[in-house]
Amino acid sequence: MTLESVLADTLLCPRWIVPVEPAGTVLEDHCVALRDGLIEAVLPRADADIGYSAYEKVELGEHALIPGLVNAHTHAAMCLMRGIADDLPLMRWLEEHIWPAEAKHVSPAFVKDGTLLACAEMLRGGVTCFNDMYFYPGAALEAALAAGMRVSLGMIVLDFPSAYGADPDDYLAKGLALRDQWREHPLVTFCLAPHAPYTVSDATFGKIAKLAAEVEVPVHIHLHETEDEIRRSLAEHGVRPLERLRRLGLLGPGLIAVHAVHVDEREIALLAKQGASVAHCPSSNLKLASGFAPVARMAAAGVNLAIGSDGAASNNRLDMFGEMRLAALLAKAVAGEAEAMPAQAALRAATLGGATALGLEARIGSVVAGKAADLAAVRITGPELSPCYDPLSHVVYAAGREHVSDVWVAGKRLLREGMLAYAEENSPFAALDTRCKLWQNSLSVRA
Amino acid sequence: MTLESVLADTLLCPRWIVPVEPAGTVLEDHCVALRDGLIEAVLPRADADIGYSAYEKVELGEHALIPGLVNAHTHAAMCLMRGIADDLPLMRWLEEHIWPAEAKHVSPAFVKDGTLLACAEMLRGGVTCFNDMYFYPGAALEAALAAGMRVSLGMIVLDFPSAYGADPDDYLAKGLALRDQWREHPLVTFCLAPHAPYTVSDATFGKIAKLAAEVEVPVHIHLHETEDEIRRSLAEHGVRPLERLRRLGLLGPGLIAVHAVHVDEREIALLAKQGASVAHCPSSNLKLASGFAPVARMAAAGVNLAIGSDGAASNNRLDMFGEMRLAALLAKAVAGEAEAMPAQAALRAATLGGATALGLEARIGSVVAGKAADLAAVRITGPELSPCYDPLSHVVYAAGREHVSDVWVAGKRLLREGMLAYAEENSPFAALDTRCKLWQNSLSVRA
Repeated sequence: MTLESVLADTLLCPRWIVPVEPAGTVLEDHCVALRDGLIEAVLPRADADIGYSAYEKVELGEHALIPGLVNAHTHAAMCLMRGIADDLPLMRWLEEHIWPAEAKHVSPAFVKDGTLLACAEMLRGGVTCFNDMYFYPGAALEAALAAGMRVSLGMIVLDFPSAYGADPDDYLAKGLALRDQWREHPLVTFCLAPHAPYTVSDATFGKIAKLAAEVEVPVHIHLHETEDEIRRSLAEHGVRPLERLRRLGLLGPGLIAVHAVHVDEREIALLAKQGASVAHCPSSNLKLASGFAPVARMAAAGVNLAIGSDGAASNNRLDMFGEMRLAALLAKAVAGEAEAMPAQAALRAATLGGATALGLEARIGSVVAGKAADLAAVRITGPELSPCYDPLSHVVYAAGREHVSDVWVAGKRLLREGMLAYAEENSPFAALDTRCKLWQNSLSVRA
Repeated sequence: MTLESVLADTLLCPRWIVPVEPAGTVLEDHCVALRDGLIEAVLPRADADIGYSAYEKVELGEHALIPGLVNAHTHAAMCLMRGIADDLPLMRWLEEHIWPAEAKHVSPAFVKDGTLLACAEMLRGGVTCFNDMYFYPGAALEAALAAGMRVSLGMIVLDFPSAYGADPDDYLAKGLALRDQWREHPLVTFCLAPHAPYTVSDATFGKIAKLAAEVEVPVHIHLHETEDEIRRSLAEHGVRPLERLRRLGLLGPGLIAVHAVHVDEREIALLAKQGASVAHCPSSNLKLASGFAPVARMAAAGVNLAIGSDGAASNNRLDMFGEMRLAALLAKAVAGEAEAMPAQAALRAATLGGATALGLEARIGSVVAGKAADLAAVRITGPELSPCYDPLSHVVYAAGREHVSDVWVAGKRLLREGMLAYAEENSPFAALDTRCKLWQNSLSVRA
């Protein structure tokens, strides 16, 4: 009875833990001990009371503790264009609104402010890690680190010039230089991010395949999003985009196929066999009328499923609770089976599935000892969440991001009882509201 | 310059008003004057400052004021079964979970507490009126009036006995008696509510058609929800359910067809021609894998569209902001057109469309002088709603029910800066949390 107690930085004592691994588990009366940014232990409360002393003890008596959500596909900075144009067909939306606004306004300052705005939104909604694809990834990196978030940065590549890059080699050189500078940072990882089959040439894809093998990073690409994309590929390359990527050596466990709305049985089997991941973006697919991804069939085939919000210009929110719920609901109707994508599978896709896509499954995505302390607490109270027969069901089907009370990334508490560090001096978010209004005024002139 | 000022009870001064009529309008720097529960005037702020004095002036400097949302189809009391069973096929879900729980527990006390819980959830989410279908409508009425909400009560009819009714005549007699007692109440209206084509016989439908014509109330019925319903109707009656209702005299402007997932072109044209309404329940249709309602085609044909949450057992939330957004997104993907159901059409369906279905379009559903002061204020601030190029877009695509700050029903402020009257003495919601937990314990024994 004279056990020496272990010292933890923080002891979290939630009503429930939904660890994601093992699937479907809900722990009651357990605690999570954090040390040096990691989950030191998940253990019964009685054992924690005896065995651990901590500098900080956080009682979460009405909360479910879940892994921080992983937003597997976004263009964070586009938050500055939230709602600038809606209800338009894709090409009119792009050509008349988004591309002109980008051409005129996108700069490192735009990307930094837009990404900070996205980080504020995502942290408040329980997201601890995001996989970004946009211009000026160095500015996005600055914003993410200022906010304290974990980030996977896309080394974006297009065959078209932009203010950020002159040609594919220039895009790649800039991305790789950024990676060389930051690759050792514990919160930062990288993807090669060829934009899409219709904006990247075979020659560029060839270089990217070679690089991906050399530097061992995932390849993050919009793929099989619309029927038009597939028609164009057939017309220009004689094969569907996935087959084109396969021939160019890009299909493997590092592939993150974003959208994958239009995939046939053979393609699903191929994605599964190759260990590729799909970043499912349900709101975006609906809003742009792209179609319905066959999520249940992909899951049945063994494809690793992740979930993304896409950018706020086509969503119009970076709300992983919303996407998780919509993914679960939509999968059922698309499959014609109410059993499709049950709550636990949706939560897995929004956490461990995203971590796996990014090659981070050993480090994040579940509440397991040894992983990083990337966590979110969901307050299960109020009329909207009463009664509660099953906290896992409530996290997916009944809760919204507004029920997230606290968020930790690598053990650091970034959201405390619903509040970001807005009021603190030197908070990265301090001037955000004012800067948003300035950007809005500036963009409104054109829009 | 010495205008005599008009006395109003309340003057609301929001940043924006989205009145729904005329379609697509957004008013800036306007006020809404309330008197005796009605909207007395909608007028420029400068005119209000000169022309009106009010007992209470409510500054809503960051808010969009919208009509209170109308939940066109719910089973409010089922909130007590929120999340009791998910991810199951319809018949297993009903037969193994919902019906046994109902058989054992449903009583006037259950319905009153469950409906109070629903009212708390709905008011906090900007819903001011709901169209209910459940057992013991008298208990639901008590709850709605205690909460101060506007309610349309279904005089439910089935050909099967329940604790509430012995046979169709008994159900009808009880419903009509309730209506006789309450029909003059300004917040209460009634529908005849035959449950569904597969639970109501031709003879009963005949009686209902006759009654509907006599007492001039809408007919609220689940219709064309699943393919199985249609197959059964073809097998048992030789015609599809809508045709069966037509032959029995039930198809007309009073018909509220709930779901209408599986309707062909001829049926859509018929619904439009007859002036019938459809209560679209997108979350429920997805979660139960019922299918995809052809909302854009119904809108194009001129069918009056309303939106409902369905019950919390199959949703699992009574969240009209969520349903409105999902309706708008889903309609686009189903139609294959990003222009389908634009923001203004979704907001109309969630307000004036619901009012029209209930025969209340002259009294509620838009912010127009002479209508009841059923209003909701949406606070457009914070990272999730920044920047704001278009408040109407934000209300539908970016905002959630958590952004609702204030709600008025018939001029009475039922939600004040996010708070219900929980803390007040004699608040109907005072003991709700405790009573929810008691019901949960009771139902958990069986579940």
